[in-house]
Amino acid sequence: MDVNLGPALVAGFRFSGVSAGLKHQEGAKDLGLIVADAPATATAVFSANRIKAAPVYVTMDRVRSGRLQAVVANSGCANSFTGKAGLKLARESCALTAREIGCAPELVVPSSTGVIGHLFEIEKFAAGVREAAGQLRDDGMEDFARAIMTTDTHPKIASTSIRMGGGQSVTIAGVAKGAGMISPKMATMLAYLVTDAAASPSQLKVALKAALPNSFNAITIDGDMSTNDTVILMASGAVRNNALSRRDLVAFSRGVEEVSAMLARELVRDGEGATKLVTVEVRGAKSPADAERCARQIANSPLVKTAFFGCDPNVGRILMAAGSSGAVVESDRLLLSIAGIRVAARGALLVDSLPQAAEKMREREFTVSLDLKLGKSSSTILTCDLSYDYVKINAEYTT
Amino acid sequence: MDVNLGPALVAGFRFSGVSAGLKHQEGAKDLGLIVADAPATATAVFSANRIKAAPVYVTMDRVRSGRLQAVVANSGCANSFTGKAGLKLARESCALTAREIGCAPELVVPSSTGVIGHLFEIEKFAAGVREAAGQLRDDGMEDFARAIMTTDTHPKIASTSIRMGGGQSVTIAGVAKGAGMISPKMATMLAYLVTDAAASPSQLKVALKAALPNSFNAITIDGDMSTNDTVILMASGAVRNNALSRRDLVAFSRGVEEVSAMLARELVRDGEGATKLVTVEVRGAKSPADAERCARQIANSPLVKTAFFGCDPNVGRILMAAGSSGAVVESDRLLLSIAGIRVAARGALLVDSLPQAAEKMREREFTVSLDLKLGKSSSTILTCDLSYDYVKINAEYTT
Repeated sequence: MDVNLGPALVAGFRFSGVSAGLKHQEGAKDLGLIVADAPATATAVFSANRIKAAPVYVTMDRVRSGRLQAVVANSGCANSFTGKAGLKLARESCALTAREIGCAPELVVPSSTGVIGHLFEIEKFAAGVREAAGQLRDDGMEDFARAIMTTDTHPKIASTSIRMGGGQSVTIAGVAKGAGMISPKMATMLAYLVTDAAASPSQLKVALKAALPNSFNAITIDGDMSTNDTVILMASGAVRNNALSRRDLVAFSRGVEEVSAMLARELVRDGEGATKLVTVEVRGAKSPADAERCARQIANSPLVKTAFFGCDPNVGRILMAAGSSGAVVESDRLLLSIAGIRVAARGALLVDSLPQAAEKMREREFTVSLDLKLGKSSSTILTCDLSYDYVKINAEYTT
Repeated sequence: MDVNLGPALVAGFRFSGVSAGLKHQEGAKDLGLIVADAPATATAVFSANRIKAAPVYVTMDRVRSGRLQAVVANSGCANSFTGKAGLKLARESCALTAREIGCAPELVVPSSTGVIGHLFEIEKFAAGVREAAGQLRDDGMEDFARAIMTTDTHPKIASTSIRMGGGQSVTIAGVAKGAGMISPKMATMLAYLVTDAAASPSQLKVALKAALPNSFNAITIDGDMSTNDTVILMASGAVRNNALSRRDLVAFSRGVEEVSAMLARELVRDGEGATKLVTVEVRGAKSPADAERCARQIANSPLVKTAFFGCDPNVGRILMAAGSSGAVVESDRLLLSIAGIRVAARGALLVDSLPQAAEKMREREFTVSLDLKLGKSSSTILTCDLSYDYVKINAEYTT
């Protein structure tokens, strides 16, 4: 399956992105719409944070019906920790969007990202929605992607086409934003996937749930988890292959997973201040939980991540993280490779191989592979390095 | 009880610190001795990391007897992840120390800190021990403190005197090193406490165990946990008040706790690249576990720590961390203060108070206080900010 980095036309959906003046930067796009020609089937997953933003509560409530027609998303203000006023504002933003595009307010869901604890001005927002509704285009996906960016340096879009059993092709496309507060269980992250396939809400749920472990839940930038994370999957059914057959659902789910994985990878690659994309693979763990906690501990360790930034094949820090993860680890058994170079085995550092590993770590992407040799479970997490720019961005930017 | 930052004379103990050439820096002290005039009672606690360094295994084994006469500690090499060769080296370093000072090798324990995965040269080490044995002095505590420093910018020593029931005074003094890899459960950290009190090994164990929750286990620098952490408490009994009475044990334990807390505070204040010492207090949690995980999540969040560095009263990030900690948190109930300024209450940000909080955050020390208003449990963790220099130190230094 070919997944492209970039937009696609998805029959039944139009998109736009405009500048409504919600962001500080003059003229930056900060309000986007996704509108389906008719009510689409839909499913969504959300932040596991105990403190959820107002738009998350509204979306959780409305997506239960399995049908949505529009998403109104903004950057520049997270509408999080804003109490009842925030909930009212989130519902109002949907109501005025519904009026502009002509659908029931319950079919519109809001998303917000940006500074926490503040409300946006509804007048600015309303003017933005009016403008965005006037600019809806089937090729407007990139405008939408730009409107939801915060510290992202570029828009993130991926798409693929899949041939279904009946010979018809369906398209799946996705747009995401990330940059910081990305970790356990899908963090500051908004992602929207749309497809022209006809799929029931429960089929969409199956597909999205299956996609998460190897995509949005398998990445970390800083171990922090946002209050606004949302992934929505909507299907227009504009390609009139009836509801998916069991076999088609398998292919469709794989498509959703691969588009999600591509977007997730782009999120890490564009992590705040990131200069490297590192795949942390743990194999041979005693249990799946051990594998995951070991991979996450390595992927989140500030000492490991600063060593990545410094191109330092620092075996000690990686093993320190593995050993402190709670997973069963036996130092005499494990094998560790960095960028394909074996650097530790049989309880000892392979000192002679370190210069070669250091050289390979200069590349923008590499893999850290730890085989615990204790069992059959494995886990893979994508992470990035911790650079001066991460500190700069986060010491100077108020989220 | 007055605890002083600085050394004290502790009857029955002598100390030294020399340069044995184990560190890269020419002439830097890197080998230290603590020697008791006669076998002392002793107890110790260690890293919870699954991968422990060779000297930790040797110390764990030997301290079980409850008696030690000497510690030989080095910086510049952690002797961790060094397999059987590392264990042999650790035992050898004790044997040659025992020969120099004239005691049984089983009464000597080793500690190492520095680069992981490498062995030190035993010849250099032996020469260093010989020199250090010749320089033992009752006022040599600062030399010892310097010999165990890695990225620490200054030696850390604290001491106090306590009057016992019988009218006699006993002294407790401690030396520690820290700087990075400091977190959950007592991380890269070596600390040695000595006292002239007469206390049984089990009394020492009680005192040290009681001291940990509010000292070495209540600090974090980067959430990472080292393979070498060791805290040793030794009592010479040189002040011949018989074994501690129950009441004296209480006073003695408080002394151990306060000296430990002072050292722990110094470790955080001197954390790698740290410019601020922040006390994170969580109160009103549903359970002690909730209080602790909430405080730790805030104290370890890179986004929170970079905001500290930027003097940014970033309520959103603190609440994001609280909400993602797993603790029960209700955003409508909690109260949050930064540096004594209330910044969030009743589900809303107190926007007008933010400039004042930002101003107060310019100070070198402040407190973040979060009252969850859900129960009676509390937890306090000391942390520091995450600065450019943390990245610099750890991208350029191989541990």
